[in-house]
Amino acid sequence: MGNYITDDFLLQNKPAQTLYHHFAADQPIIDYHCHLSPADIANDRQFNDLGEVWLEGDHYKWRAMRTLGIDEQYITGDAGYQKKFRKWAETVPFTLRNPLHHWTHLELKRYFDVDQLLGPETADEIYYTCNEKLKTPEYSTRNLIRRMDVEVICTTDDPVDSLEHHRTIAGDDDVEIEVYPAFRPDAAYNFSDPGGYNEYLNKLELVTGINIRGLDDLLEALYDRIDFFDEHGCCLSDHGITTLHSEPIGKKEAETLFESVRSGETLSVAEARSLRYVILLELSRRYDQKGWVQQFHLGALRNNSDRMMEKLGPDTGFDSIGDYPQAESMARFFNELDRTRQLPKTVLYNLNPSDNAVFATMTGNFNDGSTRGKMQFGSAWWFLDQKDGIEDQLNVLSNMGLLSCFIGMLTDSRSFLSYPRHEYFRRVLCNLIGQDIENGELPDDIEWAGKIVSDICYHNAKSYFEF
Amino acid sequence: MGNYITDDFLLQNKPAQTLYHHFAADQPIIDYHCHLSPADIANDRQFNDLGEVWLEGDHYKWRAMRTLGIDEQYITGDAGYQKKFRKWAETVPFTLRNPLHHWTHLELKRYFDVDQLLGPETADEIYYTCNEKLKTPEYSTRNLIRRMDVEVICTTDDPVDSLEHHRTIAGDDDVEIEVYPAFRPDAAYNFSDPGGYNEYLNKLELVTGINIRGLDDLLEALYDRIDFFDEHGCCLSDHGITTLHSEPIGKKEAETLFESVRSGETLSVAEARSLRYVILLELSRRYDQKGWVQQFHLGALRNNSDRMMEKLGPDTGFDSIGDYPQAESMARFFNELDRTRQLPKTVLYNLNPSDNAVFATMTGNFNDGSTRGKMQFGSAWWFLDQKDGIEDQLNVLSNMGLLSCFIGMLTDSRSFLSYPRHEYFRRVLCNLIGQDIENGELPDDIEWAGKIVSDICYHNAKSYFEF
Amino acid sequence: MGNYITDDFLLQNKPAQTLYHHFAADQPIIDYHCHLSPADIANDRQFNDLGEVWLEGDHYKWRAMRTLGIDEQYITGDAGYQKKFRKWAETVPFTLRNPLHHWTHLELKRYFDVDQLLGPETADEIYYTCNEKLKTPEYSTRNLIRRMDVEVICTTDDPVDSLEHHRTIAGDDDVEIEVYPAFRPDAAYNFSDPGGYNEYLNKLELVTGINIRGLDDLLEALYDRIDFFDEHGCCLSDHGITTLHSEPIGKKEAETLFESVRSGETLSVAEARSLRYVILLELSRRYDQKGWVQQFHLGALRNNSDRMMEKLGPDTGFDSIGDYPQAESMARFFNELDRTRQLPKTVLYNLNPSDNAVFATMTGNFNDGSTRGKMQFGSAWWFLDQKDGIEDQLNVLSNMGLLSCFIGMLTDSRSFLSYPRHEYFRRVLCNLIGQDIENGELPDDIEWAGKIVSDICYHNAKSYFEF
Repeated sequence: MGNYITDDFLLQNKPAQTLYHHFAADQPIIDYHCHLSPADIANDRQFNDLGEVWLEGDHYKWRAMRTLGIDEQYITGDAGYQKKFRKWAETVPFTLRNPLHHWTHLELKRYFDVDQLLGPETADEIYYTCNEKLKTPEYSTRNLIRRMDVEVICTTDDPVDSLEHHRTIAGDDDVEIEVYPAFRPDAAYNFSDPGGYNEYLNKLELVTGINIRGLDDLLEALYDRIDFFDEHGCCLSDHGITTLHSEPIGKKEAETLFESVRSGETLSVAEARSLRYVILLELSRRYDQKGWVQQFHLGALRNNSDRMMEKLGPDTGFDSIGDYPQAESMARFFNELDRTRQLPKTVLYNLNPSDNAVFATMTGNFNDGSTRGKMQFGSAWWFLDQKDGIEDQLNVLSNMGLLSCFIGMLTDSRSFLSYPRHEYFRRVLCNLIGQDIENGELPDDIEWAGKIVSDICYHNAKSYFEF
Repeated sequence: MGNYITDDFLLQNKPAQTLYHHFAADQPIIDYHCHLSPADIANDRQFNDLGEVWLEGDHYKWRAMRTLGIDEQYITGDAGYQKKFRKWAETVPFTLRNPLHHWTHLELKRYFDVDQLLGPETADEIYYTCNEKLKTPEYSTRNLIRRMDVEVICTTDDPVDSLEHHRTIAGDDDVEIEVYPAFRPDAAYNFSDPGGYNEYLNKLELVTGINIRGLDDLLEALYDRIDFFDEHGCCLSDHGITTLHSEPIGKKEAETLFESVRSGETLSVAEARSLRYVILLELSRRYDQKGWVQQFHLGALRNNSDRMMEKLGPDTGFDSIGDYPQAESMARFFNELDRTRQLPKTVLYNLNPSDNAVFATMTGNFNDGSTRGKMQFGSAWWFLDQKDGIEDQLNVLSNMGLLSCFIGMLTDSRSFLSYPRHEYFRRVLCNLIGQDIENGELPDDIEWAGKIVSDICYHNAKSYFEF
Repeated sequence: MGNYITDDFLLQNKPAQTLYHHFAADQPIIDYHCHLSPADIANDRQFNDLGEVWLEGDHYKWRAMRTLGIDEQYITGDAGYQKKFRKWAETVPFTLRNPLHHWTHLELKRYFDVDQLLGPETADEIYYTCNEKLKTPEYSTRNLIRRMDVEVICTTDDPVDSLEHHRTIAGDDDVEIEVYPAFRPDAAYNFSDPGGYNEYLNKLELVTGINIRGLDDLLEALYDRIDFFDEHGCCLSDHGITTLHSEPIGKKEAETLFESVRSGETLSVAEARSLRYVILLELSRRYDQKGWVQQFHLGALRNNSDRMMEKLGPDTGFDSIGDYPQAESMARFFNELDRTRQLPKTVLYNLNPSDNAVFATMTGNFNDGSTRGKMQFGSAWWFLDQKDGIEDQLNVLSNMGLLSCFIGMLTDSRSFLSYPRHEYFRRVLCNLIGQDIENGELPDDIEWAGKIVSDICYHNAKSYFEF
């Protein structure tokens, strides 16, 4: 692999190399959105097996293996991790041109100093080498994080979560990594299954002591949890929905819809969207009061295989990209908040790359000079988190907004081995800017370009989130 | 033209050249979807005129000529082929940067060994040179096919077709080319003109002997033809529709709608979509039983000029790209089949390039490990069948799925001179992969990259379709 | 800046340099669509301040400044132009990779021969240098235009406009620049505010002397103004709407809707679209009679911030890109005109880049050979007017139509310093074609490529508009 993950991997011109090595590589990481387990960090979990770390929950890999025709037994089934790892090793060479191929070898190199290409012939050797290392204290969860110079981590947490692990971490003098919760209230407006929804509300009643009969009760309960999260250092929320699109309804209609679902009735798709819209609006107003940042991840089409959903549940590799109308509804939503000056700082992520321009220009409508880069067109996400997707997001943002104000990368990952994705992003960023310098499309001022690079890699996020 | 269609045309880096010449160029062609005339192959038709071969039915060329301001007389009118050819020759230099410019010169070079650029000054010389060759037995239809090393051809045929020409070809010991029909039942759910639709059903009654009164009769008749096609070596179907989008309806409502159109009434657009959806679902189930592959060509907006439709009929150059919602309806359709394990192998083609990511990720929802590359994101089609379109499809597929499992190119053409489109695709493919190797974005392992290339050019299709 | 805006800026290969310098650079400019003030040309306005020229009305710059966190006082507020200019100079280095960065330095170089990069350190020096020049007669409005070799300008004018300034210009023997009005009747079908709409109709009554009670009266009044514009040299119209999408309605329903809005009632969004559709259809028929060209700018989502709309009005930087359905409605609209052979020459501009392919192929449906390039896929517009956007438009047009028939660039600008955008476009165009030649994707025939380039830069527009 000597000439694969080299020092200048993805840095295809001189200025890019200078930019990366002098301005990007040494910046600490602020991972302001991910799905890491706070329990694992609290317990400083130790992995014994590379198969486990890589294949326990990574539905990107599962999906690739299924496409190659590998039996579910070796994916989420009861085969042991060694067998699963071998099947994954068999798959890797067939992932060429997919980000999995880059990520896999970046992770081998950065965490384990392994220089070989993973494949059937090298599978066992790599497996044993890495397992040996994983067993040592240097490879505990916290040390995996430290190895990558991660300064801040924001996990993704449900409003009913006790945040006990976050308390453990915060109370542990040995942990200098800042680990904060983020507020993800998707369950509070997921009306698709009234039974499950009402069970969820019952939990919310329990943790808040608030009796949830009407919409106002629900909002009170959520405000209560916002306060609770805030006390634990939370400063941002996240919302994963298809679209903000909805028919306009009044507060009263919203009340009625809520009471109807609370009594176990099923809402139509249109009704559910309208009620969700109203709840999100009120949540936003509260975030603004708290000085939080809100994130919207829009456009995923989830759980498309009923058969596999029943077997494996959500987030198991059966999701794809939707094509929902987005523009008018986002404009209406943010305008409604902006009109009363209750619009918090906001990061917008689209999953359909055809929406890049819509999202990038939407942010400009509500950048009113009050805060630098108040509205952010968020980093390329999920299926778009690969070289082309990152480049597209950066280019559209550059052309239609100010790249210089961008808060940059996050992993969005469930794996403790995903931190090289920040490196990957930084290399792509430096390569683009370097190319512009080399082509004479930017002034040959490496100091200025370097300042912008380091801002995007670290300083912009630091000041935006006030970490 | 010495430096136009060179040996290394489109191969802009060393690894690309190696990949193409060593791993791609010599692979036979499997053209699993095209619109070639089986009659012409059965009769081993001999063309006498380059104007005829090129301009008899090629609406791509017609459209370009109209844009340039050429009178219809020289396009589909009564001017002779020599005059039409001259007008086309006049047009060619103005098609620069359009795939027609590449295709034209590739075809001149590969079939006729003509090295000149086509234009007004060379028109007559090229015309006579090619016509001389066309008259020889070496340029009969079958020999044109053999010249390009085509192993398998799947034509596109209506359910009522007698398949007589396929029988002739199959029964002819002189033909080693495998020529199979493909089942394209679009007429069976095209309800836009009830008069024409009922005439079509009458034909279907005739060839099956089934009295078509209700929806079940229609399905029986179609199953009957599926069996008939199957006996003639058919192993795939094709469906050209705008979108699978529809309101969900039950079997009973579908029955009522069918009876209504059978009695000559006109369906609304929404009703027509719902009924089509139900029919397609049942057809898919039958394909699955038969072990067939199904293809969906989605997103065309056809016959946009009433005036020209009346004059010239369909497929004459008045079609364009639609912007239909696709994601949710596809997910629902395939899920409905997958739930009962009746989802056949499927190839999905989108015409709107903005849908690339939606289609590429949709396939992943139903790749369940049962068959390698079961759900395919199909090759760039029609307006997208050009270098940029092919690259986009390959890149999106690479980033969001497994390029290595891709079944590759088909011509989709009506012309016996279109086979260099496979060469064109292969060059673009090799150029992309070679570029990645040169840039260090892929390991420098030409053997592995070459294996993947040869799989995409030939072996993947061979095993996917079980030819 | 010596190596920023060089002679070969954006020309990244030899053939591109030859094409630009020999075939593009010296072509005069036909600016067939812009928002320049005819009053300023009539009065030969003299600017005294670079801040004024640049910041008086340029909402692109305002938007960037707001994103950077600059207070509105320095944007549209009461700070003087020197202070505003300093804030803009502070912003410029942060616009790297945005077209503003290129435009700013191109304008400094071409109009003022300033070679420095604009930033806080150079702000004052550049300010004084340019102001000195602006005060001289060589920098009057007309001389700014002459400096860029502009031959024709089409402004954008409301039907009620008196066109007095156009008369002044036409009657002034000192002005050899051809300045024509263009007919932009958007206010005549903007029903969103019935009060404002009826005030507008009252104005229209005044200038035409026609009593507008019914829809036919409105059309008569507009025809009257079309004649009036035509007499003043107008040969094209422009329409800025979201989409042509509408429910089909008859003339009678349209009448009723019109009477309802005329009596002060509010139309639903669907009703407004239907009525607009009917009016546009009749206007198109009249344009066709007049031999005019019609333009459609589709897909903007305007005035998204109520708060800022109240403060500053429209066109102040709070607009973005919509995601409306476009394909079917455009096809229906143009087909309805084409059916009776009343479809005028048409230029279609999309704002959402995801619609590029839809628009590019739509034009092909109605190119019937009657006029060379009759239906045009218009140049990249507004948010798309940057290198990537221009390249995308050119590439999609090349792949799906005939680039050779393209009428090319327009500024669409409110500023007299925007003419280098034509140079910018030409450089991008030459760079693309040059790259193809260098890569062997086009024949190495610089004369032919040069002819096509000069056609796109100048001759095609000249003959298309018959200037």
